[in-house]
Amino acid sequence: MYDGIVQELIDEFGRLPGIGPKSAQRIAFHILQTPTFDVARLAELLSEIRLRVRFCEICGNVAEQERCGICRDPRRSQALICVVEDAKDVAAIERTREFRGLYHVLGGAISPIAGIGPDDLRIAQLMTRLADGTVQEVILATNPNLEGEATASYLSRLLTTMQITVSRLASGLPVGGDLEYADEVTLGRAFEGRRVL
Amino acid sequence: MYDGIVQELIDEFGRLPGIGPKSAQRIAFHILQTPTFDVARLAELLSEIRLRVRFCEICGNVAEQERCGICRDPRRSQALICVVEDAKDVAAIERTREFRGLYHVLGGAISPIAGIGPDDLRIAQLMTRLADGTVQEVILATNPNLEGEATASYLSRLLTTMQITVSRLASGLPVGGDLEYADEVTLGRAFEGRRVL
Repeated sequence: MYDGIVQELIDEFGRLPGIGPKSAQRIAFHILQTPTFDVARLAELLSEIRLRVRFCEICGNVAEQERCGICRDPRRSQALICVVEDAKDVAAIERTREFRGLYHVLGGAISPIAGIGPDDLRIAQLMTRLADGTVQEVILATNPNLEGEATASYLSRLLTTMQITVSRLASGLPVGGDLEYADEVTLGRAFEGRRVL
Repeated sequence: MYDGIVQELIDEFGRLPGIGPKSAQRIAFHILQTPTFDVARLAELLSEIRLRVRFCEICGNVAEQERCGICRDPRRSQALICVVEDAKDVAAIERTREFRGLYHVLGGAISPIAGIGPDDLRIAQLMTRLADGTVQEVILATNPNLEGEATASYLSRLLTTMQITVSRLASGLPVGGDLEYADEVTLGRAFEGRRVL
């Protein structure tokens, strides 16, 4: 549709998740027509990102050093590990400012359909971390969907033999949500998990 | 939230139009975690785009040479000029395969609120193109909104003294649309512009 490089840039943006052809076109033209947009900076970041970013050798979170900022922070509780599927989940939990322990990123969830079994996840590394007895509680914060639940129950069975408390994040109605629009599974969970006031 | 460069990349993507913080995060992690994504190619395109792309000296469309592919194409009718606001509109019209003439990109529309007057648009260049009498019809394809209509009526008044047919794209119900959901202005236009069958 466009001459050479403009179309190439549109195509390349269109390969990113959540960007359709119209958005890709809009972005390409924004970059072309907005003198204030620092295109050189974005190009530089893209060239460097894969070279500079690695994954924390302890927890699997994104890091620019061998260990991530959370694993390096001496103020975080070493007795608490929150197990998540993805590094994005670490950021989501950090935003709540509720959790002051460490993380363990599995790198996915058990999914027979996608061909992902326990050996494809960072479970052996988790067991190694738990071996020395420092950790007292493991919070299973995998997603509340089929794969996440399967992973959580697999891990909870694996950890029963150890002297470690295993907990799971609560399921229930989202705060600010509307009871009328809650799906029946969520509403059922909210009943199951009801608290005496 | 993230260590250095990851957050920088997220922020930089978040500056693009239509990309919120969540999408920006998703894109950054996609780039980090998808080995098949050609990040070097995107970085290279971004570095080159502003150097290689210019705007056609005749019509103002995007081009990699002095003249764009459409202005260089001898098969396009030299007697017909379609006036649009933006280079993106050229691509939209080209996709219809209905129009085989040339274009003229104004670079915006008259908008007193945004402080854009006729002198800020490529109107003088349009008049120069019309001066030699080759062009027989000018199709005003500015957007069917306040600014686009103002621009179209300004241009049509400007062109009355010349021996040139001036036309405007039809307004009406979108094809595949639903009469019930059409706004009253569009429906009114559809009545005004009704055709005898």
